[in-house]
Amino acid sequence: MVSKKYVYFFGGGEADGDASMKALLGGKGANLAEMTRLKLPVPPGFTISTDMCHYYLKNNHTYPDDLRPRVDEVLARMEKIMGRRFGDPSSPMLVSVRSGAPVSMPGMMDTVLNLGLNDVIVEGLAKQTNARFAYDAYRRFLKMYGDVVLGVKAEQHEGIDPFEKAIDRLKHARGIQQDTEMSTEDLQQLCVEFRSIIRTRTGQDIPEDPRAQLRQAAGAVFGSWNNPRAVSYRQLNRIAHDLGTAVNIQAMVYGNMNDDCATGVAFTRDSSLGDNALHGEFLNNAQGEDVVAGTRTPMPLSKHQKAEGETVLSLEEMKPALYAELLRIRDVLEKHYRDMQDIEFTIQGGQLWMLQTRTGKRTGIAAARIAVDMVEEGLITPQEAVLRIDPERHLQQLLQPIFDPAEKKKAETAGRLLARGLAAGPGAASGMIVFSAEEAEEMAKYGHEILLVRIETSPEDIRGMAVSKGILTARGGATSHAALVARQMGKVCVSGCQALELDYSTKQLRIKDRILKQGDWLSLDGFEGKVYDGKIKTKASEVVQVLLEKSLRPEDAPLYRLYEKLMRWASEARRLEVWTNADQPEQAVAAVAFGAQGIGLCRTEHMFFEGDRIDSVREMILATDRAGREAALAKLAPLQEEDFVGLFRALGERKVTIRLLDPPLHEFLPHEPKQVAELAEKIGCRPERLKQLVDALHESNPMLGHRGCRLLLTYPEIAEMQVAAVMRAACRIAKEGVKVLPAIMIPLVGIEEELASLRVLTCRVADQILQDEGLSIKYHVGTMIELPRACMVADAIARHADFFSFGTNDLTQTTYGFSRDDIGKFLPAYIEQRLLTDDPFQTLDPKGVGGLMKIALEKGRSTRPDLHLGICGEHGGDPRSVQFCHNLGLHYVSCSPYRVPIALMAAGQAALQKAQQP
Amino acid sequence: MVSKKYVYFFGGGEADGDASMKALLGGKGANLAEMTRLKLPVPPGFTISTDMCHYYLKNNHTYPDDLRPRVDEVLARMEKIMGRRFGDPSSPMLVSVRSGAPVSMPGMMDTVLNLGLNDVIVEGLAKQTNARFAYDAYRRFLKMYGDVVLGVKAEQHEGIDPFEKAIDRLKHARGIQQDTEMSTEDLQQLCVEFRSIIRTRTGQDIPEDPRAQLRQAAGAVFGSWNNPRAVSYRQLNRIAHDLGTAVNIQAMVYGNMNDDCATGVAFTRDSSLGDNALHGEFLNNAQGEDVVAGTRTPMPLSKHQKAEGETVLSLEEMKPALYAELLRIRDVLEKHYRDMQDIEFTIQGGQLWMLQTRTGKRTGIAAARIAVDMVEEGLITPQEAVLRIDPERHLQQLLQPIFDPAEKKKAETAGRLLARGLAAGPGAASGMIVFSAEEAEEMAKYGHEILLVRIETSPEDIRGMAVSKGILTARGGATSHAALVARQMGKVCVSGCQALELDYSTKQLRIKDRILKQGDWLSLDGFEGKVYDGKIKTKASEVVQVLLEKSLRPEDAPLYRLYEKLMRWASEARRLEVWTNADQPEQAVAAVAFGAQGIGLCRTEHMFFEGDRIDSVREMILATDRAGREAALAKLAPLQEEDFVGLFRALGERKVTIRLLDPPLHEFLPHEPKQVAELAEKIGCRPERLKQLVDALHESNPMLGHRGCRLLLTYPEIAEMQVAAVMRAACRIAKEGVKVLPAIMIPLVGIEEELASLRVLTCRVADQILQDEGLSIKYHVGTMIELPRACMVADAIARHADFFSFGTNDLTQTTYGFSRDDIGKFLPAYIEQRLLTDDPFQTLDPKGVGGLMKIALEKGRSTRPDLHLGICGEHGGDPRSVQFCHNLGLHYVSCSPYRVPIALMAAGQAALQKAQQP
Repeated sequence: MVSKKYVYFFGGGEADGDASMKALLGGKGANLAEMTRLKLPVPPGFTISTDMCHYYLKNNHTYPDDLRPRVDEVLARMEKIMGRRFGDPSSPMLVSVRSGAPVSMPGMMDTVLNLGLNDVIVEGLAKQTNARFAYDAYRRFLKMYGDVVLGVKAEQHEGIDPFEKAIDRLKHARGIQQDTEMSTEDLQQLCVEFRSIIRTRTGQDIPEDPRAQLRQAAGAVFGSWNNPRAVSYRQLNRIAHDLGTAVNIQAMVYGNMNDDCATGVAFTRDSSLGDNALHGEFLNNAQGEDVVAGTRTPMPLSKHQKAEGETVLSLEEMKPALYAELLRIRDVLEKHYRDMQDIEFTIQGGQLWMLQTRTGKRTGIAAARIAVDMVEEGLITPQEAVLRIDPERHLQQLLQPIFDPAEKKKAETAGRLLARGLAAGPGAASGMIVFSAEEAEEMAKYGHEILLVRIETSPEDIRGMAVSKGILTARGGATSHAALVARQMGKVCVSGCQALELDYSTKQLRIKDRILKQGDWLSLDGFEGKVYDGKIKTKASEVVQVLLEKSLRPEDAPLYRLYEKLMRWASEARRLEVWTNADQPEQAVAAVAFGAQGIGLCRTEHMFFEGDRIDSVREMILATDRAGREAALAKLAPLQEEDFVGLFRALGERKVTIRLLDPPLHEFLPHEPKQVAELAEKIGCRPERLKQLVDALHESNPMLGHRGCRLLLTYPEIAEMQVAAVMRAACRIAKEGVKVLPAIMIPLVGIEEELASLRVLTCRVADQILQDEGLSIKYHVGTMIELPRACMVADAIARHADFFSFGTNDLTQTTYGFSRDDIGKFLPAYIEQRLLTDDPFQTLDPKGVGGLMKIALEKGRSTRPDLHLGICGEHGGDPRSVQFCHNLGLHYVSCSPYRVPIALMAAGQAALQKAQQP
Repeated sequence: MVSKKYVYFFGGGEADGDASMKALLGGKGANLAEMTRLKLPVPPGFTISTDMCHYYLKNNHTYPDDLRPRVDEVLARMEKIMGRRFGDPSSPMLVSVRSGAPVSMPGMMDTVLNLGLNDVIVEGLAKQTNARFAYDAYRRFLKMYGDVVLGVKAEQHEGIDPFEKAIDRLKHARGIQQDTEMSTEDLQQLCVEFRSIIRTRTGQDIPEDPRAQLRQAAGAVFGSWNNPRAVSYRQLNRIAHDLGTAVNIQAMVYGNMNDDCATGVAFTRDSSLGDNALHGEFLNNAQGEDVVAGTRTPMPLSKHQKAEGETVLSLEEMKPALYAELLRIRDVLEKHYRDMQDIEFTIQGGQLWMLQTRTGKRTGIAAARIAVDMVEEGLITPQEAVLRIDPERHLQQLLQPIFDPAEKKKAETAGRLLARGLAAGPGAASGMIVFSAEEAEEMAKYGHEILLVRIETSPEDIRGMAVSKGILTARGGATSHAALVARQMGKVCVSGCQALELDYSTKQLRIKDRILKQGDWLSLDGFEGKVYDGKIKTKASEVVQVLLEKSLRPEDAPLYRLYEKLMRWASEARRLEVWTNADQPEQAVAAVAFGAQGIGLCRTEHMFFEGDRIDSVREMILATDRAGREAALAKLAPLQEEDFVGLFRALGERKVTIRLLDPPLHEFLPHEPKQVAELAEKIGCRPERLKQLVDALHESNPMLGHRGCRLLLTYPEIAEMQVAAVMRAACRIAKEGVKVLPAIMIPLVGIEEELASLRVLTCRVADQILQDEGLSIKYHVGTMIELPRACMVADAIARHADFFSFGTNDLTQTTYGFSRDDIGKFLPAYIEQRLLTDDPFQTLDPKGVGGLMKIALEKGRSTRPDLHLGICGEHGGDPRSVQFCHNLGLHYVSCSPYRVPIALMAAGQAALQKAQQP
């Protein structure tokens, strides 16, 4: 039976599937099956697998012939359990049709509820239940079907979809606020209006036959896999495009039948700060979409969720028995899944129904707290805790600045606290207001710091949210779209801030009597849900205060203590060392405080721009002979030596790898006529002559030009000065009794002889200085591996190298033939056309660049088994790239100081993941 | 005995070495041993091996201890054979000390003759022979020792060395022309002067002890391996720097003892045009250096060498018996070595002594004739004949233009024939006169065509010769330095043109009453040794006249017939196909005439500049939307179609590979303000706006920017237009009954998806046109492999490619990280410092670029075993690169039309060489 593969039944305590079958059933379907097996109260239903999605998309949006009898079979089982029949006006069973992909994509795909109604059946439903409920269900169905299946959407100029508009119009006419206040007649009128909207907009009607509705709706869900916002979401979240989605068809239970009904969502622990308590919201007499969509502000589940003095009743107070049942289910789920769950439930009369469970999204702070707590509760191991932390999103949040308490207090005293909303994404952010995702993207291009302010957010806003510092919404709870996505992105977010009055058309925001325009500054405190007028100065995170500023004691820093535990567990597993790229002593000090184990890259040229030393650099470049260059270099030498002393002192007995001059010389010269004229006067040269000299240094492709070791070989006096400065500095620190470890790194080697020649020069200069100083300091000479040819001849190059450091920025440029400066001309199109899934300058390309690294490593070790290997490109701080480096067998990664914690965590995870593999 | 390895005796019909030991004994030493074994009359001696050279250079210019007794031992054997004793005034044996590297480097290294003299021994020699001879030998010894061992050289301002200056001064004072006219007293005076010159210049004297002289002289020869001109010669001729040289010490025989003595050099066949007859020169009463140095004009060996009416006596006439003996030896050597030999001999009294034999350098024309003749004589096989042709230097000469006979006749009628010299390098060349190698290099930089005119050339002139169209000298025979080097370089050369009166100081050349200045034009006919005033128009070579112009019948074209035979033999062995890079029908026709088997690369963008179509191209580039681009492309489409029709017609049923647009768009736009203004007016746009558009297309590193498939993917309409034009053209020719073979090539692919996407586009457009036309034409879609990443993921790319064409220009750029446009800033220093031996853009780098090609080939075939593989970079016409491609297993190389014969020959040789390998 081919259909067996496509259709998986669940209900009455039995299920074809289970939680392990996410790839086939999607996350939702697999967990519905699992909950059914756990004997939790789940309405019966069935899942059509992702295989069917592939079939459907490949076969021109058709189904196989044998699907229909199989669906009839499982519908019959559902009918038996529910005691109602699908399409039977006398006792109709309605169903929900929901997407469910193998990876959670909240709000990205489509859902149709209350399916199985038509003008006849709705009357039957009315008789069986009550008329108000029946028409409420019907109008919801019509709207969703119109939207999802028939494509009736809000148009650009409307801002809000025509169904919502009709509701608003009606509520306005009736003078009511809540949907629940609408009368049966109101709802009946809406149904008529909705059918009319659909007919006007699409020229067609919804099929009368419930089975035809089911077929079309499931097809629409499958098709939604490739809708632009889903594609965009997958790209942003690096989800493979070929997974496909499953469809879940489930008997409807009603949270909106009467006031004895409700629907709600909850996290088994707080998803914002991680407190170990059920945390959620519900709406009385509503369907689940009302909560998620953020169109009504929901009520808290428990008493402790209520703010002081809040009068609204919680579920705990309203329905204590059902609340207790919910707590029981929470325990079952947490013990079973061993992780915080995000659940949806519906209460119909006295009965609690579970509609969904899945691993809950959380902020970085919540992730850290939950992971540590669960270890302490004995639910998970420390290794599992480490693997639950996303180094990029979660850890980053523990390191992000917070508002300076004094400044915040001052702002409050000055009356700048404008409003309070839900603390939906912790952190502190100030920015200029924008009112649309498009404007956000536009302004971000120009480097502005922005806050996206919306009535509510929708999946279309994702790109705009990604470029914003923070998100502020007027509607929606802690589980609204804005809150979910912001948490996932690690953005500061305040949601459901009802004091906001937004007017998109005039681009104005009114909060009480304060009117703000696009471009005005606001500040958001995502820990407390507060909105401030203007900018507020931030201060360092607890981690930074403890480790770097030493202004806070660990015992006073609970977030630091979480950080410390997780990092310790990660480090226990870690094999890969983490070094840092630092050019200045302060950077080096910070990196060491974060745990850096060496300097993998000091870019000496960065020092060239400090103070007025650029004058000597320019004098050196513009000298026409070696003597002139040497005179200028003699002025630079003591300054460079001083820089290196600072680095050696910061690193102590850790290795300090110093790269000799790399960039093309024209980078140090002015190019604008005015600057040229200034420099000409400074050095006493005619401007025309100076311009000639500058022009002579121009190159067609400077990236592939006269730079790196090519410069050092044509102007060996530069290398001599730099090596001498390094060794003199090393000698000074060595005399203080520190066992310094200097390493000289030669850039851009592609030919064995280049390195051979510069190694001889380096050793000659270094040995002479050691002899003069009467010291014996071990030093290393190695090379960057940043050209494909260097990889191909690494066996020969390794003969002259104590170490290789992969310069993956340049290696990516030459391997792809991509200029990092020019890639903007086509990279967006490439991402859009799915020619690339990642920017290879952010995440190391494992096949091309990584393949060359593997060749280099193997060839290098073939002639020099003790070759020391690391990476110092930007990729050294990218978690997936760190994992690649671990698996390749490098000794270290080197990244910028503030990426050190992320790399340390990623390196620990890489070791744990590798250990898990068979 | 360690010394056994260093010292190899030869003499009296016995020798330690033989001709196979060139690596150890050098060419000269190995052949002296071989000639001794052949029982030819060779003065006894010994060779100190190249191993000693390595020892000497590595051990701070010292010898091992046990060398001295071994040298004493072989000196004793020489003394026994010669009946004289080294250092014994009563019967002194003198020796020559000559360098001899494993590869011939004529004139590059140093020689000392008549070693073993001092003020006492010279008197003994005088008694034993005669005083004039003895002092002639002594002054020669002093000069050579002073020059070679003690470093007395001509200084910049002198032009000529101080010894020669002293001789000239003395001859002038005496009113004599020839060295032979100098009296004994003259020579004695010279000896005093020479010793004084040496003392003045160096502050030291030549050692009195002959053994000390021997040690020093051998050391100087070893040291000369690294003198700048030897290094430069090796670089130019691609000789490895680590071979080292041997030193040959041989008992002196004297061609200058009296008028019964002579010395000469000969080629066993004519080295200029290849006639099968002994061809050489001698000088009576002279030492060999007099002939080679070109300081005296020598006499011909045979009657047939004399020009009509020439009165000078030949050796054949002067000494018929010795001439007959020379002919016998010629036969022995040619039969033994099976190749044309370059020999040196000395006649002492009635005795002929052989001093050297080696494979003779020859012109391309001589090489072809000798190879073909020797096949016909049964001496060698056709395969050996093919391997004797240097595709670059020899074959090229058969293809070089010659003077247009009518124009030449006109020049002669107009009295422009200024002088005659020796036809030392065949071919025709016109150029501007320069008088020094430095000026030659300087003027060549600016693209001038130049002729280097010198009294005589020396090894210091090599770089200047290399950049000249032709060389003209006043002194020196057909075996002079100028002649030898010119032939080797394939340069046109007229040597020994005695009518020239050169004044370097005023930079003037007088020929009879015509005075020429630097920059004036001369023309040289190297076939006939004629010098013409002004420029003379050239016409095509015989090969080109027969094959391309069809203006000559093969039976009237002897050089063509040689060419045809050699190419036929080469093709019989060849496996690799040779295709051509052609953008225009005329180029394609020429390439096919030369034997091209397909078009491997048509650069469609070259067509964009023709006529006024650049206007449409610019319109397309400057369009701001797709519709604007499509309108401009619609104008280009029929023009491109017409171009492709021409190519298909020229190629018939051979494959035509058309590459879609590759370069960045800004290459098609003007950049100078004036041109921008013109274009702005033309297209009706404000110049500032146009400048903005042009600037927006600027890239930091255009080589790594928005070009190739990146353009085609962002502007698919360009690809659509080009594919359509190709297929429409193919249809038109197909309708003429020709089975066309179009192939579409996608440039700059580095990501599988790029090619996948463009393949879909290509097939869609192509299939639509075929359907419209109702035709079924097979076409291929493939890709350039020109990025390292493409090589690394070639398995994935090959899934979408019918063929790979290695674009080794770009692949070399990205593999090395060298911009071809900018490499000039450091390549000269790299060559000088020996960091690179070849320009990787000329000769394919086998390790780096070649290694990546090998990966690409293996990976590509792993997913697509029938993948067709070729190369279309500049390397496709470079013989060593062709050999690499053959060995790698490619199917074809593609090169510019005029390189097709060279590639065909190189491909044949590659197959033969591979077959020879074990």
